[in-house]
Amino acid sequence: MPKVTADITMSVDGFVAGPDQTLEEPLGAGGEQLHEWALRLAAWRRPHGLEGGEDDVDSELVEESLAASGAVVMGRRMFSGGAGPWSDDANANGWWGDDPPFGVPVFVLTHHERETLPMEGGTSFTFVTGGIESALEQARTAARGKDVLIAGGAQAAQQYLKAGLLDEIQLHVAPVLLGGGVRLFEGLGPDDAKLELEEVVESSVVTHLRYRVER
Amino acid sequence: MPKVTADITMSVDGFVAGPDQTLEEPLGAGGEQLHEWALRLAAWRRPHGLEGGEDDVDSELVEESLAASGAVVMGRRMFSGGAGPWSDDANANGWWGDDPPFGVPVFVLTHHERETLPMEGGTSFTFVTGGIESALEQARTAARGKDVLIAGGAQAAQQYLKAGLLDEIQLHVAPVLLGGGVRLFEGLGPDDAKLELEEVVESSVVTHLRYRVER
Repeated sequence: MPKVTADITMSVDGFVAGPDQTLEEPLGAGGEQLHEWALRLAAWRRPHGLEGGEDDVDSELVEESLAASGAVVMGRRMFSGGAGPWSDDANANGWWGDDPPFGVPVFVLTHHERETLPMEGGTSFTFVTGGIESALEQARTAARGKDVLIAGGAQAAQQYLKAGLLDEIQLHVAPVLLGGGVRLFEGLGPDDAKLELEEVVESSVVTHLRYRVER
Repeated sequence: MPKVTADITMSVDGFVAGPDQTLEEPLGAGGEQLHEWALRLAAWRRPHGLEGGEDDVDSELVEESLAASGAVVMGRRMFSGGAGPWSDDANANGWWGDDPPFGVPVFVLTHHERETLPMEGGTSFTFVTGGIESALEQARTAARGKDVLIAGGAQAAQQYLKAGLLDEIQLHVAPVLLGGGVRLFEGLGPDDAKLELEEVVESSVVTHLRYRVER
């Protein structure tokens, strides 16, 4: 049975983006530190057409996760950064470049209808205005029996958790205090999920915690 | 060089106590779940005069930590629960029983002067009204070259971190969403500490993350 996993990096004080998000600093003050663990990896650089980078336990985990996933769902901000509607948005084609690292269909939660954007390397961005259940259904179909990855941001993960649609949460805990910003678990509580710790993967720069969501 | 370590259990959404703390539920709604991992251990039950309990990677860690510590510092609420001044407080002697699990001098941060309470098993409670630096100085002296453990609560840990007096944070992350309550890192930010992940110990019920605090 394919799984639906929310896969997201969080600071040790619980934020997935820092305070004061702007177009220039879409991850907020200090937020870029969250993703340093991933950006240094060959597993990240290769699909971005960059050479070099590290191969270690972190990259194994990223590669396994990408290999298991047949489709991705993400929020609109994660697709494009910024806040405006598409037509006014300098990042209308997203900030993922021509050859995004997913290599599978990506479903973007949005309020604005738009044609599907085919990209290089097997990635496509399909814009879903019908809500999270519709996006998941489309992602499940597109995944053809593989897992669906909810790649963020916080709001998308919260909505799927609240709706009881997540099987797993894969948290990457970065050793950073952001002190403000977007909280991953904002508005959620004990009634929304029982978690069971499934796996811990340790690396020198981040801690990967996989929780099964009991329903 | 002996270390000063804050040792504290946090929910995955960042709380060290749940919402709505009362005398009956001093850890707030759901807060008792945070400590289930420790309460089931022989390492916890033995010093409380209870038989049985589990011996596993979690108890090893607790025993190592207690063995390395020559003195403990805690906030007043952690000592006694509740909110009133001593004389009105049903828990005036704390909720730790006659033979608290520490076995070393404990320094309690408080605004109310009070005679030192000697307990069984080597524990004593000394009440410090001179602030966190004074408490740490007394604890260091009492520890005779061993480590000092800051046992909580959140406010004590925050004050020591903010003052640059912590060498380490030992976080026990419980797989629980509390949804509200007392946040461990409330009011702290990137300027208060740079953290470096030092060790991860995995168990089936909790994740132990040890961070070195860079100053």
